[in-house]
Amino acid sequence: MKYALGVDIGGTKTSLTLGNSSGRIVSKETLPTLTGAKARHGIEQIAEGLGRLGARVGPARKILGVGVGVPGPMNPHTGVVERSPHLKGWQGFPLKSFLRKRLRLPIYLTNDANAAAVGEKMFGGGRHVENFVYLTLSTGIGGGIVFGGKLLTGATFGAGEVGHTIIVAGGDRCGCGQKGCLEAYASGTAIAHFVQKEIKRGRKSKIRRLVRTNRRITAEIVALAAAEGDALALESFRRAGFFLGVGLANLINLLNPEKLILGGSVMKSSRLLWKSMMASVRRHAWSSLFRGCQIEKTGLGDRVGDLGALALVFAASGRGRSAL
Amino acid sequence: MKYALGVDIGGTKTSLTLGNSSGRIVSKETLPTLTGAKARHGIEQIAEGLGRLGARVGPARKILGVGVGVPGPMNPHTGVVERSPHLKGWQGFPLKSFLRKRLRLPIYLTNDANAAAVGEKMFGGGRHVENFVYLTLSTGIGGGIVFGGKLLTGATFGAGEVGHTIIVAGGDRCGCGQKGCLEAYASGTAIAHFVQKEIKRGRKSKIRRLVRTNRRITAEIVALAAAEGDALALESFRRAGFFLGVGLANLINLLNPEKLILGGSVMKSSRLLWKSMMASVRRHAWSSLFRGCQIEKTGLGDRVGDLGALALVFAASGRGRSAL
Repeated sequence: MKYALGVDIGGTKTSLTLGNSSGRIVSKETLPTLTGAKARHGIEQIAEGLGRLGARVGPARKILGVGVGVPGPMNPHTGVVERSPHLKGWQGFPLKSFLRKRLRLPIYLTNDANAAAVGEKMFGGGRHVENFVYLTLSTGIGGGIVFGGKLLTGATFGAGEVGHTIIVAGGDRCGCGQKGCLEAYASGTAIAHFVQKEIKRGRKSKIRRLVRTNRRITAEIVALAAAEGDALALESFRRAGFFLGVGLANLINLLNPEKLILGGSVMKSSRLLWKSMMASVRRHAWSSLFRGCQIEKTGLGDRVGDLGALALVFAASGRGRSAL
Repeated sequence: MKYALGVDIGGTKTSLTLGNSSGRIVSKETLPTLTGAKARHGIEQIAEGLGRLGARVGPARKILGVGVGVPGPMNPHTGVVERSPHLKGWQGFPLKSFLRKRLRLPIYLTNDANAAAVGEKMFGGGRHVENFVYLTLSTGIGGGIVFGGKLLTGATFGAGEVGHTIIVAGGDRCGCGQKGCLEAYASGTAIAHFVQKEIKRGRKSKIRRLVRTNRRITAEIVALAAAEGDALALESFRRAGFFLGVGLANLINLLNPEKLILGGSVMKSSRLLWKSMMASVRRHAWSSLFRGCQIEKTGLGDRVGDLGALALVFAASGRGRSAL
């Protein structure tokens, strides 16, 4: 059995894992993701944590390498952190060479949604599938495209930005500065934003009460209100489902995939948007292409980020089904 | 030097060619595309025409095969014509086996826009490019995606329907029955339709006069009026350019291609929409991905369909740079 170390860097926390090539996570640590002036300190802590985890399997040579999923664009060759809204203070840091020197192991970095797609290919719903797209729906929307069994990286490792394809030209403002992106209509942020706007317009909702104790409306709070039957909360999820369906239909018509796999925190509330999402995909995709495409929630649950990071190592080392 | 026969089936005419593996068209015939009750007769004429062209290079064994570009979805394995609005009366016809029996040559069929992308890879702007998308803009909008030097066919050879990705959810009605497709905003049909609608609303335009002699407003007539400085005609092309730019930006953000190559009859009037198109791409695509992507008009001109059909044969036979 071969081992790898994985780093899944998130907006608020970073997960470090030791896992094996059959997809079992042997050991895990969670650190806060430090940014700004503390960024360098945070990166040091990641290296130390990886050292601790690695020591648990004895001599370091049993570990094939370290896989890192980064929340933002990442060129795996240079391994230098590019501009990412989630990683202030990290920009320009040579993460790959730093970790290589500290751990004396091969380092494999890529965008987190691309890593997750590689994880799905190796350990999840993509195992026996040649052509699929993995979508992560949380604060934002990211994606990883696998075609012919391989990750479609694009010319400069920027492919997969499903969240920033425009589905309503001239529409709602997106966090990226554009108007009408899928992310502005179907992300967790969009679900919360729609509710905020409607409440501001005077609409009644249980969410007002929930927010008295929680400062900011989030998609999680909207989901809580929806569970209590709140009409506005339910509508916000249904609306997101409709627009998500448009985005999925676009992927189906453009790429004719066998499968679409959906993950991310919003998918924890998938039952609140699944019906409207499927109705919208059925309506907007070409029926012949829709029939040939399975749409499913990730079976890897919360582990998709960790397994994605680990899969980067096994894929590059030729263990399991390669997707890189 | 090796030869191939090519068939480029269009909505109104079908082009038959004899060409060689360096992309030279040696001989060519044009037939009307017969549909409805005359469909079978039309297919017979294609087979006879190919026989005549083939006879010009002497013994048939010098010809590697016949490539066929079909205006609609086409599974290259079955080779049976599927439902296509351009080929009424052809549906269910076993085109591949029919031509194979008549010509005793290997037959390679695919969707015309996919064939054109293979042609670009072998003979055009895609020659030294691993990742690009070819778009054809005429009555409709089609596409062919090449990644890692290979045609991205999708699960059931349906990939590339760029024209039927939605850029304005709930927007204008498209010929395919959906609302808000790129084709409903940036095709030749859309350019003509916008002008029709504006004239109906009472807007003045030189096009009224041009249409007195020509029955129906087409994109070609709008282009003629634009050449005379007609404000409405110019606006219609600029508007199409804006929406085309949205569609191209979506391709850039999703696929991160090195190049986008544009062809089709609308591109004969490319100067009327190029500026607004480029401004729109620049505005809507992520700047890092936009900078890495070259956008150009096909250098193959009217021959792109013929060369695409021929390239299918050479690609399958391992002559030149394969894209299949």
